Amino acid sequence: MPRMGEFELLARMRERLPAAGDRVRLGSGDDAAVTVPGGATATSVDALVEGVHFRRDAGFSPEDVGAKALATALSDLAAMGAAPGEAYVVLGVPAGTAEEELLRLADGLAAVAAATGTAIAGGDVTRAPVLTLAITVVGHAARPELLVTRAGARPGDLLVLTGELGGAAAGLLLLERPELAAAVAEETAANLRRRQLRPTPRLRAGAALAAAGAGAMIDLSDGLAGDAGHVAAQSGVALRIDAAAVPLAKGLAEVGAAVGRDPLELAASGGEDYELLAAVPPERLSEAATRIGEAAETSLTPVGEVGDGEGAEIRLPGGGTLKTTGFDQLARSPGWAAGAP
Amino acid sequence: MPRMGEFELLARMRERLPAAGDRVRLGSGDDAAVTVPGGATATSVDALVEGVHFRRDAGFSPEDVGAKALATALSDLAAMGAAPGEAYVVLGVPAGTAEEELLRLADGLAAVAAATGTAIAGGDVTRAPVLTLAITVVGHAARPELLVTRAGARPGDLLVLTGELGGAAAGLLLLERPELAAAVAEETAANLRRRQLRPTPRLRAGAALAAAGAGAMIDLSDGLAGDAGHVAAQSGVALRIDAAAVPLAKGLAEVGAAVGRDPLELAASGGEDYELLAAVPPERLSEAATRIGEAAETSLTPVGEVGDGEGAEIRLPGGGTLKTTGFDQLARSPGWAAGAP
Repeated sequence: MPRMGEFELLARMRERLPAAGDRVRLGSGDDAAVTVPGGATATSVDALVEGVHFRRDAGFSPEDVGAKALATALSDLAAMGAAPGEAYVVLGVPAGTAEEELLRLADGLAAVAAATGTAIAGGDVTRAPVLTLAITVVGHAARPELLVTRAGARPGDLLVLTGELGGAAAGLLLLERPELAAAVAEETAANLRRRQLRPTPRLRAGAALAAAGAGAMIDLSDGLAGDAGHVAAQSGVALRIDAAAVPLAKGLAEVGAAVGRDPLELAASGGEDYELLAAVPPERLSEAATRIGEAAETSLTPVGEVGDGEGAEIRLPGGGTLKTTGFDQLARSPGWAAGAP
Repeated sequence: MPRMGEFELLARMRERLPAAGDRVRLGSGDDAAVTVPGGATATSVDALVEGVHFRRDAGFSPEDVGAKALATALSDLAAMGAAPGEAYVVLGVPAGTAEEELLRLADGLAAVAAATGTAIAGGDVTRAPVLTLAITVVGHAARPELLVTRAGARPGDLLVLTGELGGAAAGLLLLERPELAAAVAEETAANLRRRQLRPTPRLRAGAALAAAGAGAMIDLSDGLAGDAGHVAAQSGVALRIDAAAVPLAKGLAEVGAAVGRDPLELAASGGEDYELLAAVPPERLSEAATRIGEAAETSLTPVGEVGDGEGAEIRLPGGGTLKTTGFDQLARSPGWAAGAP
């Protein structure tokens, strides 16, 4: 490390991070943080590793890295319908990292923490060969049964999706091949890149869907096809998604065409959109739509239904089903959770 | 990864880890784990990075790596007097890692989890350039004020220490220079190596000291001098430790002599002993000793006192104070906590 002095650097990073939270009695600065959690907690861990999940030379600023690491961790809480509470950050820092870069990374963490009301209650900083973030997030609910798992989808439920898909995949293409930006308007390209660099955890939408009786919910980190498959497996049902109903991000079709990729395939398998897929009893669909409207965070679209059977399929307009590529469990970071077959 | 199949490998790792806990309503396999925490929680994060905290070619088996990562994380809960509850494991795996190695690492985690009653409630597995573990541990107490911070030492308190110091430092010397084992009996050498490879979190001792009214407590991860300094700074008092009173690990003197190092200096600055240093009001010392005896985990020794002033000093038998080397905040992993000046 350069010469600011390590204690001083850590103190300066911590100064930038919101440490206070309703439930935090003692934040960082002791052997452990002390919180008073209330009825039930949802806890999830996520890691972001340089060269695996992001490349600093491919458009990710230090602020983006910090913001995306916390946002993607919080997305798992959104998928439970939990209220965000505390985050704990393990930061692995390569030798020679500029202090300025770490302070900017802290700014990215702080921006998402402030926007979501999350307290950074503790952490650990260590040397590592590449920039590494491992983030633990803790969310809260009054009772455990108010948290929405992947296991409660029932035949007859409707499948609803927040927002639009494919934006993160198109954004990644634009970051990797900047010349593709010619295919769309500049503002559209900027929005797509932003979907990749700065995903939004759908915390208000998740809480709204939980309150509207969603029986199962998952955030789309690995892609619609794979994540729908997890819900099908854990609920013991079949998920049937109508491809024509899935809202696609603006500009996805043009960027897809420029690289010869089917936009629907990009939307279904690209991953990293961090929208929510939920199973809702049909009689509560209008309540779900109303609550999502009140949450004012994103849109809600019915995209399919739950039936008897097993597996998830995406039905194409012309008949047949979409074949999507799988994902590499250890190359990306779908969570231990996804280790369940 | 070799060809067991990644889902199958993760499933086999998870099978080896104890997932059930009194407070766990939903373990790994969903977006987040669901727990019912009770009155107060203590949460701490710790990272172990290959090449920084351990070297596989220097005597660390995969079981040792898993066991040490969880044990050192739990040591922070011991220092709070918290009852261990849940752990969440982020595992970064280099390409080409043998499956057998990961299963053995899981066995090491499982051994410490079982010995301490900790549930492995979730995790995340990702690619990383070197083997990396980031572990979050959550401990419980009925009320936040029952958890012991570093800030409550008062002038007049006695300082007490569990166990013996210097064993981990001597063990590291023996691992790095196997020829030094000739200086001590084989059983002594094995015990010293074990102090480095397989530290024991003093959870029962920590609970006993908390129950006996310890006002401040810290686990000795960075060395007696540095950690005592943290208590002094956060309590706003001076800590005076009598070097002659500090129990030294058996064999430390001989190993130290073989490398020309002062055993006391090794004991005070070597770190990684994971014993507890606590400040106890004098009228409760006998209760503390009784409770430590009942906990049947380790010994308790008065080593000094708390006074007005600031800083921590280790007083040598012949007069003067011990000069100890500092530690590199980013080379070792003293915790975000230690970022406080």
